Amino acid sequence: MDAAAIIAAMGARARTAARELAVCSTEAKRAGLRAAAAAIRNDVANITTANEADVATATSLNDALIDRLRLDTDRIEAMAAGVDAVAALDDPVGQVIDTRTPANGIALSRVRVPLGVIGMIYESRPNVTADAAALAVMSGNAIILRGGSEASRSNAAIHAAFVRGLTETGISADAAQRVETADRAAVGAMLTANGLIDVIIPRGGKGLVARVQTEARVPVLAHLDGNNHLYVHAAADPVMAQAIAVNAKLRRTGVCGSLETLLIDRAYPAALALVAALLGAGAILRGDTAAQALDPRVGLASDSDWDSEFLAPDLAVAVVDDVDAALQHIARHGSGHTDAIVTEDRAVAEAFLARVDSAIVLHNASTQFADGGEFGLGAEIGIATGRLHARGPVALEGLTTYKWIGRGSGQVRL
Amino acid sequence: MDAAAIIAAMGARARTAARELAVCSTEAKRAGLRAAAAAIRNDVANITTANEADVATATSLNDALIDRLRLDTDRIEAMAAGVDAVAALDDPVGQVIDTRTPANGIALSRVRVPLGVIGMIYESRPNVTADAAALAVMSGNAIILRGGSEASRSNAAIHAAFVRGLTETGISADAAQRVETADRAAVGAMLTANGLIDVIIPRGGKGLVARVQTEARVPVLAHLDGNNHLYVHAAADPVMAQAIAVNAKLRRTGVCGSLETLLIDRAYPAALALVAALLGAGAILRGDTAAQALDPRVGLASDSDWDSEFLAPDLAVAVVDDVDAALQHIARHGSGHTDAIVTEDRAVAEAFLARVDSAIVLHNASTQFADGGEFGLGAEIGIATGRLHARGPVALEGLTTYKWIGRGSGQVRL
Repeated sequence: MDAAAIIAAMGARARTAARELAVCSTEAKRAGLRAAAAAIRNDVANITTANEADVATATSLNDALIDRLRLDTDRIEAMAAGVDAVAALDDPVGQVIDTRTPANGIALSRVRVPLGVIGMIYESRPNVTADAAALAVMSGNAIILRGGSEASRSNAAIHAAFVRGLTETGISADAAQRVETADRAAVGAMLTANGLIDVIIPRGGKGLVARVQTEARVPVLAHLDGNNHLYVHAAADPVMAQAIAVNAKLRRTGVCGSLETLLIDRAYPAALALVAALLGAGAILRGDTAAQALDPRVGLASDSDWDSEFLAPDLAVAVVDDVDAALQHIARHGSGHTDAIVTEDRAVAEAFLARVDSAIVLHNASTQFADGGEFGLGAEIGIATGRLHARGPVALEGLTTYKWIGRGSGQVRL
Repeated sequence: MDAAAIIAAMGARARTAARELAVCSTEAKRAGLRAAAAAIRNDVANITTANEADVATATSLNDALIDRLRLDTDRIEAMAAGVDAVAALDDPVGQVIDTRTPANGIALSRVRVPLGVIGMIYESRPNVTADAAALAVMSGNAIILRGGSEASRSNAAIHAAFVRGLTETGISADAAQRVETADRAAVGAMLTANGLIDVIIPRGGKGLVARVQTEARVPVLAHLDGNNHLYVHAAADPVMAQAIAVNAKLRRTGVCGSLETLLIDRAYPAALALVAALLGAGAILRGDTAAQALDPRVGLASDSDWDSEFLAPDLAVAVVDDVDAALQHIARHGSGHTDAIVTEDRAVAEAFLARVDSAIVLHNASTQFADGGEFGLGAEIGIATGRLHARGPVALEGLTTYKWIGRGSGQVRL
C-alpha cells in the first residue's frame, strides 16, 4: 500500500475507535491508561533494548539530540508515571460549558466532546509516544502517532506496551495507532487527510514546522517559535530582575520558554549589574549600542538577533525608552509565545499584561514557567502559538471541542 | 498595486487598528456601533440607489439570488437595528475564563482577547457588510471585508456609512476596511495572508467554500454543508413528529438548518400520516424501498440523495431499524451541522444526543432553530461546521481567543 492508502485505512479505524472513546466512561479510560502505564513498566527491558539500538544507529545526531533520544530506567519510569498522572486528571468530556434557555424554550447546553482523531507528528523524544497517546485517550480522542525515524524502535516498543495495556481493559487498539512505514510520504498523507484526521499536532524542529505550514490541509495546532522577551522596567526590584533574567535565559536554554531578548528600561538604575550577572552566569549577550555601552563584553546585535529563537546561551539586549517602546519592540519582533515584565509599579504591569498580545504574559516571574505542568494542567501535548482554538499550554481541555445540545418539547420555528 | 500588495497594505493597517481595538473600552465600542447604525439610517437613500444599480446589472442571477441582493427601506432599517443589537451585547473581551494558582504561586488567569484581524469573504447579501463589521468591532477585532462583485455598489455604500459613524466616535476607519478591487486575486491574497489575517470566515456557495478549502493558508472558520437529519423514533408523539418534520423541511428550504434527510423508525406507527403530511405540504420525497412502500408518491432515492444539501423542497427518506441504525446513517452521511430526534423515550433521546457528533443535536425541536439569534447569542457571523475553535453558531465569543496572564512575586523556576 502507498502512504495515502495506509493513512486512509488507519484513519477509518481511528474514526470507529474515536466514536466509541467519545462515549467511554471516565473510569474505563482511567483503567485503560493505568494498564498502559503498568505495561510500560513491565516492558522496561524491551524498551531499553530498542532504545539502545536507536541510539547506536543515530550517529548523525548531535549530543543534545542524542540526549533527547536516550531512555533509561528512570526516564521510562517517569514516562509510565506520566501516563498514570494523566489518568488522574479531571475528564473534560461531558463537562457543560454553559446552559441557556432562549425565548423559544429549548433548553440549550454546550457540552465538551472530543476533537475526534488527532494526528501527532513528532521527532526525537520517544516519551512523546506515551504522553500524547495518554492525553488523547483521556480526552476521548483516537490518535495516529508518527514519530521520527531516529526513534522508531523505541517508539514501536513503547507503543506496543501502551496498546497491550489499553486492550487488556477493552479499549480498542485503534484508539492509539502508530504509523509504521518509514516512508516520509506518510507525513504528507497525514497533513492532507481531511475528514480522516481532525487536527494535526506537530512537535519538532523548524523543518517539520515549515513542512506542516506549507502542506497541511487538516487544521493544525502548531507550536512555533518562542522568541520570548523580558522587559525590566525602571521600577523593577534589582534583586528580582537579576534572578528572573538569569533563570529565564539560563535554567535550560533549549526549552521553548527560554528568554531570547532582554529589554532594559533606560531609567532602570541597576542595568550594569544585571548585564554583569547574565554574563557571569554564562550568557552570551549581543545588543544595541546602548546595551553595548553597559559592558564591553556585550557584542553588537545583528538585525536577525531580534527575531531569533536561539535555544542557546545567546541573548539579544536592547535598551528601551519606556513601556511603550518595550511594547512596540515586542509587537514587532515577538512570536506570541511568552513575554514578561519585572516591575514594582502595578499600573505599568497591568498595562503590559493587557497590551502584550502573546499566549502567555507574566509579571514578576520567569518565562521558563511556560509549561502545562507548571500551569497546573497536569501535562501538555504542546504549547499552541496560533490564535484559534487553544493558546498556550494544551492539555486535556485543548483536545476537546463542544457541541450544542438542545432539549425541546415540540418546538417549531415561526 | 497588485492584489497581494493591496491586501498586505490593508493588513498592516488592520493590525494597528486591531491593537487599539483590543484595549478599547466596551462603552467606546458601543458608541462607535451606535453611530454606525445611525449613519446607515441616515444614508438610506444612498444605499437604496446603490442597491438598485446592483440589482439592475445583476441580470445573470436567479430570482432567489436577486432577492438576497435586494435592499429596501425595511431591510436597511433591519440592518441598522442589527448593528444596534450587537452594540447591546455583552462584551466578551476581558472576561476571565478561569483562574488558578498552582504550586509555584503564580496567580494565573485565562482572559478573553480578540482574535486580531478577521478576513470576511462573502457573496450576495449586502447586509453581511454591516453584520460582520459590527460583530468584529464589538469583539475588538479589525475586519477586512470582501463582498461579492454583484453587490459591490451596495456594499460600498453600507461600508461608507458604517465607517463614517465609527470614525465620528474616534475609532479608526482601519478597523473595518473593504477590499475595493474587483480583482478575484484579492480573495487568493486574503486566503494566503499569514501573519496579516488571523482567521478567514467564508460565507457563500459551494464554489467559494471549495476555493477556500483548497487555497487557504490562514486558519478558516468554515460554514460547510448542512445535510441535516431528523430521526422519528418509534416512541415519537405523532402530532409533534409531523409538525417538526414539516417545519424542519419547509419553513424555509434555503437556510442551512433545513432538513435534508428524514429517518423513520420501522416501528413508528404513524409513518403513513407523516409522509402524507410532508407530501401534502409540498415536499418532494425520494426514499429507499421501505419508504417508497409507504406512499406511491415517494420516488426512488439515488445514492447521492443521502449526501445532498438540497436547499429545496426535496427530502431523502429512509426507514431504519432502530436508533443504532439511525446513528450509523447519520455518522456515514451527516455533515456535522444539525441533527434531531423526536421521541417521548428519554433514554433513547439521551443516547442520540450523546452519540450524534454534530455541532447541534436537538431533541423534540425543529432543525430550523440552528441560528445564533434563536440560540440567544444576539447575532451570528456564521455557523461553524469544523471542529476546532468554535462549533455551531458563532457570535462574539467565537471571535475571541484567550491569553494566559500570570501575576507573580519574583518566581524563578527550579
